[in-house]
Amino acid sequence: MIFKMPDQYFLTCGASEGYTALNAFDGALLYAGIGNTNIVKMSSIVPPHCTLVDLIAFPPGALVPAAYAAITSDVPGEIISAGVAIALPEDENQNGLIMEYSANGERRQIEEIVRTMAVEGMMLRGWEIKDLKSAVIEHTVEKIGAALAAVVLWSSD
Amino acid sequence: MIFKMPDQYFLTCGASEGYTALNAFDGALLYAGIGNTNIVKMSSIVPPHCTLVDLIAFPPGALVPAAYAAITSDVPGEIISAGVAIALPEDENQNGLIMEYSANGERRQIEEIVRTMAVEGMMLRGWEIKDLKSAVIEHTVEKIGAALAAVVLWSSD
Amino acid sequence: MIFKMPDQYFLTCGASEGYTALNAFDGALLYAGIGNTNIVKMSSIVPPHCTLVDLIAFPPGALVPAAYAAITSDVPGEIISAGVAIALPEDENQNGLIMEYSANGERRQIEEIVRTMAVEGMMLRGWEIKDLKSAVIEHTVEKIGAALAAVVLWSSD
Repeated sequence: MIFKMPDQYFLTCGASEGYTALNAFDGALLYAGIGNTNIVKMSSIVPPHCTLVDLIAFPPGALVPAAYAAITSDVPGEIISAGVAIALPEDENQNGLIMEYSANGERRQIEEIVRTMAVEGMMLRGWEIKDLKSAVIEHTVEKIGAALAAVVLWSSD
Repeated sequence: MIFKMPDQYFLTCGASEGYTALNAFDGALLYAGIGNTNIVKMSSIVPPHCTLVDLIAFPPGALVPAAYAAITSDVPGEIISAGVAIALPEDENQNGLIMEYSANGERRQIEEIVRTMAVEGMMLRGWEIKDLKSAVIEHTVEKIGAALAAVVLWSSD
Repeated sequence: MIFKMPDQYFLTCGASEGYTALNAFDGALLYAGIGNTNIVKMSSIVPPHCTLVDLIAFPPGALVPAAYAAITSDVPGEIISAGVAIALPEDENQNGLIMEYSANGERRQIEEIVRTMAVEGMMLRGWEIKDLKSAVIEHTVEKIGAALAAVVLWSSD
């Protein structure tokens, strides 16, 4: 293995205005509790036997793998939303599946889509779903805004 | 070093339809044999003394570094292709170079372009090429489709 | 922890023409001294107690985490620039913040924007700034060009 196998995960989300799109993204990460870490984007699996935990207080600058959806907009008044969903399998030796979705639109719509995406992904695998979790955030843009939702993985060792 | 040095690699590709673009991408990863892993995207080198292996059965949820090209489309009838090429050097102490390319178009065209990209990259380094490998997949979109080609790195330790 | 904590960093930048956009990007990485590594993109923190070092001669194919801005263009005559800035805190137990920006435009403009982005990010955290560093490169496109600026992290162990 190149990287250690994660054994913990949590869902989080945040939104922010900012001086630029990247500043708004940075603000959304801070709001989500992961703003002083180095997020490494990955596709999109919860390993078997991974435990759901509360938000972890990471050491500043830690490299942290996460699956996330993010959206920025500089159109005042626009409603943007970002969401993640996790479908966990009946068979605990199988992995869970993470889906990410962001778009213009309200929280409710984005949540419905991203949850359906996770269900569809489990159907494609032919696996029964035990549990379906999601985290979605909506933001109304003032000047330059960002919305972000993430599933963060970690190792307790 | 932050991460372990890879010593194995393989090429793979896949295509799929899906409920959304991300579901189609997920299906393409499954087809390619890497759908239940956490792919971490990287640029684009095969380390020296790395061994070509068959598709590895990764532990589910493993974090796996890969260089890849992916394309999605929601235009029925459109032909999309994704490809990767590796140019390996004569001098086995030098690294190989991976190039990725995806576009609308047929497999043959995309394969020619991505192979030429790898050759050009070795010319830029002034290195002789010992071997040139590629993997390309073509997909005709029904509703929402994705094509993906990847070079996956791993460590046997 | 999944990944080792970095304790070294440096800033670098490069620009290049190329056969395709990805070849130009590859050339820019080579120019920047990180072309034969596997860059893993991350968001955007310098850990506390991290030491600024000269460009590191990485083992070829090493997986290297970096925050970077990159831009490519196939419009001859267009001026493209990419830059990174780091704001380091007065309190050495807090982390530094990296910002990345790339756009059409001259080096001077992009440098001003990316430095302001880093300052704004520290203001959002309510942290005093001890030092502000930046690296920006400008490129005038001949056929297909790329500009890249990066902050690269590493561990001395």
